[in-house]
Amino acid sequence: METFSKKVSMAVVRRLPKYYRYLNDLITQGQERISSKELGEMMGLTASQIRQDLNCFGGYGQQGYGYNIMELKSAIEVLLGIDHKHTCIIVGAGNLGLAIANYDEFKRKGFELKAMFDIDPKLVDANVRGIRIFHVKEMTDFIKLYNVKIGILCVPKEHAQIVADEMIDAGVSAIWNFAPTDLKVPDGVIIENVNLSESLFTLSYLLNE
Amino acid sequence: METFSKKVSMAVVRRLPKYYRYLNDLITQGQERISSKELGEMMGLTASQIRQDLNCFGGYGQQGYGYNIMELKSAIEVLLGIDHKHTCIIVGAGNLGLAIANYDEFKRKGFELKAMFDIDPKLVDANVRGIRIFHVKEMTDFIKLYNVKIGILCVPKEHAQIVADEMIDAGVSAIWNFAPTDLKVPDGVIIENVNLSESLFTLSYLLNE
Repeated sequence: METFSKKVSMAVVRRLPKYYRYLNDLITQGQERISSKELGEMMGLTASQIRQDLNCFGGYGQQGYGYNIMELKSAIEVLLGIDHKHTCIIVGAGNLGLAIANYDEFKRKGFELKAMFDIDPKLVDANVRGIRIFHVKEMTDFIKLYNVKIGILCVPKEHAQIVADEMIDAGVSAIWNFAPTDLKVPDGVIIENVNLSESLFTLSYLLNE
Repeated sequence: METFSKKVSMAVVRRLPKYYRYLNDLITQGQERISSKELGEMMGLTASQIRQDLNCFGGYGQQGYGYNIMELKSAIEVLLGIDHKHTCIIVGAGNLGLAIANYDEFKRKGFELKAMFDIDPKLVDANVRGIRIFHVKEMTDFIKLYNVKIGILCVPKEHAQIVADEMIDAGVSAIWNFAPTDLKVPDGVIIENVNLSESLFTLSYLLNE
């Protein structure tokens, strides 16, 4: 597969996990190639939407052949940066932190969870599927030692900013934020919010319509 | 506040929780009114974006006065349908289900969690902050008895469709879906997916750029 332009719109990027999921399912079923029409029918999209999306990153199907599924999957992996390992930590070992630590997709896609951190002495030194929970005061040294780039923030809203500041000072460059608050971070630091309220309110709005 | 048109774009709907959060914070601080300029500066938006968004649902500020914060908050509540109670259940009492059950925003905004359901006998009959976990075989009767409209799906991917089908047959009309799969549901049933992979992959993409 040829190299592709990095100028992919965020709308396409946000659809890639869905392509990735369907392509993986097809590989599991032993399928080698697929037409934009078939893929569209499976995914509830038109063939032309599929072609448009995949063209964005050099996924050119061949007339009469369609797309090579393995090639397409590999191209998506490179584009998403999941063709190589990412070292992560989770801060906040409550139910949400534990749910993320146990999240299968997370582990399968090259996100290597190195440790969890909490302030609760009852949780510190516990093991979650082989992942140790450390006291949060050890976080800075840990981030530096293991060159951790992704911090997953599962602490209450009130503590989110201070933990984020510490993570960034220690070297983290991307925060996956589950706390319902807007973090203030220096330019260049990536914040990806998982906004559960937004999602729940959207559901409520649609139900109310 | 006047009645407002229901034709609000989903982009605006998805921004409303953020307005709602900031307005609540302002009320807590005792503030009564705010200009679009001030609100914009707090929220990282321009004054004209604020005015455009709020105009969509009849939130008309007055020249020289700005917006009445309480009125604006009430209008958003009505629009989002969170001015009245919603009866919910959670299916799947693993870490994710427990995290949702303990999610503060959820409880404060009129979402009344009636029960949780699981298949694991070790979990059945346990109580989570006063919420009982029932066996999933009791789900259908429970939905009918309490006229549950919102089902929160926290089961593994493999069981998601069958549980969704049962929920809908029993009378649920909206599913908040945390399982990483595309549910097939009849027309008119609302599905709101919380797609953690999509979010994580977006973060990874941005880190890779």
